[in-house]
Amino acid sequence: MGSSSDLFLRACRGEKTERPPVWLMRQAGRYLPEYREVRRQADFLTLCTTPELAAKVTLQPIDRLGVDAAILFSDILTPAPAMGLGLAFTPGPVVDPPVRSASDVERLVVPDVEASLPFVYETIRILRRELAGRVPLIGFGAAPFTLSAYLAEGEGSRSFEKWKGMLYGAPGVAHGLLEKVTETTIRYLVAQVKAGAQAIQVFDTWAGLVSLSDYETFSVPYAQRVIEAVRATGVPVIYFALDAAHLAKAVSSCGADVYGADWRTSLADASAALGGEVVLQGNLDPCVLFADEETVRARTLAMLRDGAGIRGHIANLGHGILPGTPVANAVAFVETVKGWKP
Amino acid sequence: MGSSSDLFLRACRGEKTERPPVWLMRQAGRYLPEYREVRRQADFLTLCTTPELAAKVTLQPIDRLGVDAAILFSDILTPAPAMGLGLAFTPGPVVDPPVRSASDVERLVVPDVEASLPFVYETIRILRRELAGRVPLIGFGAAPFTLSAYLAEGEGSRSFEKWKGMLYGAPGVAHGLLEKVTETTIRYLVAQVKAGAQAIQVFDTWAGLVSLSDYETFSVPYAQRVIEAVRATGVPVIYFALDAAHLAKAVSSCGADVYGADWRTSLADASAALGGEVVLQGNLDPCVLFADEETVRARTLAMLRDGAGIRGHIANLGHGILPGTPVANAVAFVETVKGWKP
Repeated sequence: MGSSSDLFLRACRGEKTERPPVWLMRQAGRYLPEYREVRRQADFLTLCTTPELAAKVTLQPIDRLGVDAAILFSDILTPAPAMGLGLAFTPGPVVDPPVRSASDVERLVVPDVEASLPFVYETIRILRRELAGRVPLIGFGAAPFTLSAYLAEGEGSRSFEKWKGMLYGAPGVAHGLLEKVTETTIRYLVAQVKAGAQAIQVFDTWAGLVSLSDYETFSVPYAQRVIEAVRATGVPVIYFALDAAHLAKAVSSCGADVYGADWRTSLADASAALGGEVVLQGNLDPCVLFADEETVRARTLAMLRDGAGIRGHIANLGHGILPGTPVANAVAFVETVKGWKP
Repeated sequence: MGSSSDLFLRACRGEKTERPPVWLMRQAGRYLPEYREVRRQADFLTLCTTPELAAKVTLQPIDRLGVDAAILFSDILTPAPAMGLGLAFTPGPVVDPPVRSASDVERLVVPDVEASLPFVYETIRILRRELAGRVPLIGFGAAPFTLSAYLAEGEGSRSFEKWKGMLYGAPGVAHGLLEKVTETTIRYLVAQVKAGAQAIQVFDTWAGLVSLSDYETFSVPYAQRVIEAVRATGVPVIYFALDAAHLAKAVSSCGADVYGADWRTSLADASAALGGEVVLQGNLDPCVLFADEETVRARTLAMLRDGAGIRGHIANLGHGILPGTPVANAVAFVETVKGWKP
């Protein structure tokens, strides 16, 4: 049996573990009073780009919640300025100018990431020192489909009609954008590993907005390239496509070590849909944490029993923890996992 | 062969038709300049509650697009004030006070809908006169799950954490709310039929936010009751759960004549998932209308070929038409369906 400090990494590699490791997507964030305290002194973008501050908020949930992994505090849009685009948070992300045409794509830079995003790598180095092996550090980035969606749309959107109008009507432009974003993302994530990230999560947050056929055309091949390049460095990769029940047939071809699962599908059904031999990460509905503590414990136990029947399980929420979540309920979630005997 | 004026109703009843009928969800709306002209004179709520104006905008797309059905211009939140709640659009819906507790539910009124929402029924009577049999008129309302989601949350939301916190933590309160909303919705929709609506669409827009098990507990039984009561009046019912690939096993137990389908799943796959013997309505991605006209025609033809293989097909978008859609592309969509020979 390995040490509890590498429980998460052992589970990522598909080893049987004494219990599922647990962490929460967006575990550093607005629901924590100590995070809001830091945010009173710095806006979101300053926080992401100032290593001392980013490291500080990354560490906050480690002691407060007792999770089994830390995840770099950053944003999936962090690489946009290095590609030559303006980025602001108002509070949602705004990319200016958005990428809409072949000439817009032509102008995009595939950056020297260490020169243009030094704060990301410095944050990781600080974190590895300060964590001192207590828990592993996860780095992350967007899947090319999802980062391209933001760059083309220029902002968050319910429907991403400008991005999808491009996919459908100008697929050559979309593939050009995806290509440059893929190259950038590979550099961005491989350099995270070089700086000390011990696992990488790839977020394909908007994959579920398209059909299986369009997902196979516009997301899978690019996600595969990113995942393959990161895995070649020797660290495990988690791929998380949100709201992707209709994409299950293609998701497992992305080649990740672990797949994220949301609460819409049971872990047993999600595992079967992905071919039955996968490690899954998830999948408590973050909205459960808005109920009472007894409900949190009961629904967490139900998730653990569901996860006990599959190849491997990393306990997490099915999406990021929401602002306004009572901290005591996040603690109850973590404690329930840590107290569980499979 | 029936007349072209009842093509839509024949398709709803599962009859073989000479081609799929076609209409567009939210076909009266912001993408139309003549609608925006009316809106310059009246805010959204005034438009919904003034029969002459609501009828006027309902009719606008009939001539402009040449669709095979009209749909009442209204909003799924229209019944909220009759239940004793404040309603505003800013521009998204705001319900004040939201329904959060057993005593909030206790205070809710199950209204005499004809007395409290007379404008809805007057609009329908005007429309039947003015349509004069050209195309049938569809009435609509929200499924109890979706209307309750708004009443509990108090506004639109990405995650509906307050509503779902109630489902998970206080299911008795949620069932109490669903019960009163179901009774109201039955009265509201049956009275629409009595006033002249010739088919009813039930929108379960937020069903896809929960798991199959929670959907079976909190949506299906209430949707069934509404659909059964409306069908007992003799008109066909369309039930549309958005983003519901993971719910397919339970959706067809709702007992509708027609099921809505979004673009995430092919019509062939959706039909198979719903048991193979259903009439489906959908499913072009509204974002396709942001591409060029050639793409619109090609993707519409692909949808029609997909629909030709199932039990019955009513052509539509997979969700409401979006503001900013070029009118010419909406026309191209309708013309492609009308010109198609199965």
